[in-house]
Amino acid sequence: MNAGSNTMELVALPGIPGVREGDDVGDLVADAMARTGRQWQTGDIVVIAQKIVSKAEGRTRRLADIYPSHMAWEYASVSDKDPRKVQAMLDESVDVVRVAKVGPDGLMITRHRHGWVCANAAIDESNVGEDGTMLLLPVDPDASAAEVARKLEARGGIKAGVIISDTFGRAWRRGLVNVAIGAANVPVIVDWIGRVDAYGRPLQISQPAFADEVAAAAGLLMGKDSFTPVVLVRGLSWDIDNGAHARQLVRPLEEDLFQ
Amino acid sequence: MNAGSNTMELVALPGIPGVREGDDVGDLVADAMARTGRQWQTGDIVVIAQKIVSKAEGRTRRLADIYPSHMAWEYASVSDKDPRKVQAMLDESVDVVRVAKVGPDGLMITRHRHGWVCANAAIDESNVGEDGTMLLLPVDPDASAAEVARKLEARGGIKAGVIISDTFGRAWRRGLVNVAIGAANVPVIVDWIGRVDAYGRPLQISQPAFADEVAAAAGLLMGKDSFTPVVLVRGLSWDIDNGAHARQLVRPLEEDLFQ
Repeated sequence: MNAGSNTMELVALPGIPGVREGDDVGDLVADAMARTGRQWQTGDIVVIAQKIVSKAEGRTRRLADIYPSHMAWEYASVSDKDPRKVQAMLDESVDVVRVAKVGPDGLMITRHRHGWVCANAAIDESNVGEDGTMLLLPVDPDASAAEVARKLEARGGIKAGVIISDTFGRAWRRGLVNVAIGAANVPVIVDWIGRVDAYGRPLQISQPAFADEVAAAAGLLMGKDSFTPVVLVRGLSWDIDNGAHARQLVRPLEEDLFQ
Repeated sequence: MNAGSNTMELVALPGIPGVREGDDVGDLVADAMARTGRQWQTGDIVVIAQKIVSKAEGRTRRLADIYPSHMAWEYASVSDKDPRKVQAMLDESVDVVRVAKVGPDGLMITRHRHGWVCANAAIDESNVGEDGTMLLLPVDPDASAAEVARKLEARGGIKAGVIISDTFGRAWRRGLVNVAIGAANVPVIVDWIGRVDAYGRPLQISQPAFADEVAAAAGLLMGKDSFTPVVLVRGLSWDIDNGAHARQLVRPLEEDLFQ
């Protein structure tokens, strides 16, 4: 959705190792970029899978440490979920939107503390480790993105766009898509309301969710396994937005018709 | 979401003229591809804006020809919409999901006859012509995509993927994203449920909405005006799905928690 671009290129950055708590994601990205032999260019955006950011930040929680509340037991009975998982989801959320027995694991849709309405408070059940370790979202994905952006600027000399991406379902569409949950430098929504095209007509697409479309594009290369958690998106033209943050994508409660 | 691809390229095909009723979209795409000097390659996908498909198929309706029903007048009063537009939306839909006074035009969310739950029955209000002409979705976008695919195969010799894309809002996220409403040859959802990654772990992303992510990626180049309605997506590896159709993306009613 950028009239300034006619081509774009996406590259899955190679050789990102198994990320451990304490790793510097910015360094991992800069090192991976260096391995490609490419130089940073103005307009470059890196999309980073939430999973490696959460791992680097040690955002894990062990089922064995969780003692489910009465409420967790109730939702567990409605959703067929492990009450300890439900407790972890409740702890990550400010509201429960829907709970249902759907699919093998049941479904619990909550409003995450970050504002996202999504399944299972964005805790990836399929990824609960042998030892019952769950991976939670970063404490503040926008701050995480900003930190990566600072590191990339320090090492690459340019203000690259940084998007932290997770995979969400949709209310009325099957399948999962990558969306932006954290962002730095890049505008997350481009506001063209009131603008007209070259023919003087109102723009057909007035508010593209730029960061979500970039995240979805990167998702195509992120791989069904965990080997390509970082994707370079090159060729889009966009203006630096120093105040950019993915929470701008959260629809305000007063506009939410599906609470 | 394709472990077989590490890079991909998107190209907005140049020189698609103002499309008129009766135009052959497949020929327009093939001609535009020829102008780029590129040859078709296995794995190529073209994403086509719904707008030009609807125009080629003459899917227009004039406000002046519409006599609103009592129900249309009622929804119009709730949504602040032109009752004739509301009638057109009702005629395109099988159910009304939500109606509200939101934004300048109000909001009417319906279940389109094709199954999509979206705003204003996918009628682009901002694009109602001077003469009050509205553009509706194609009668059968999957059939439209299949027809384009046949033409491209006849002229290019390969089974290109074809996706017809429109721009939808989301229940809980601000901004608009391109999604697939018609598809041919390409799988719209890749089902990796039960598969494991190279480490023997369950795949983290089990059902990527492949066609929606491709549509979103293409949306980044489709332009805020109407000059680039067709985007070539090159570099993804996917298996031909002769039974592919975008309606597979419609979440069945029995799974819909937000009716």
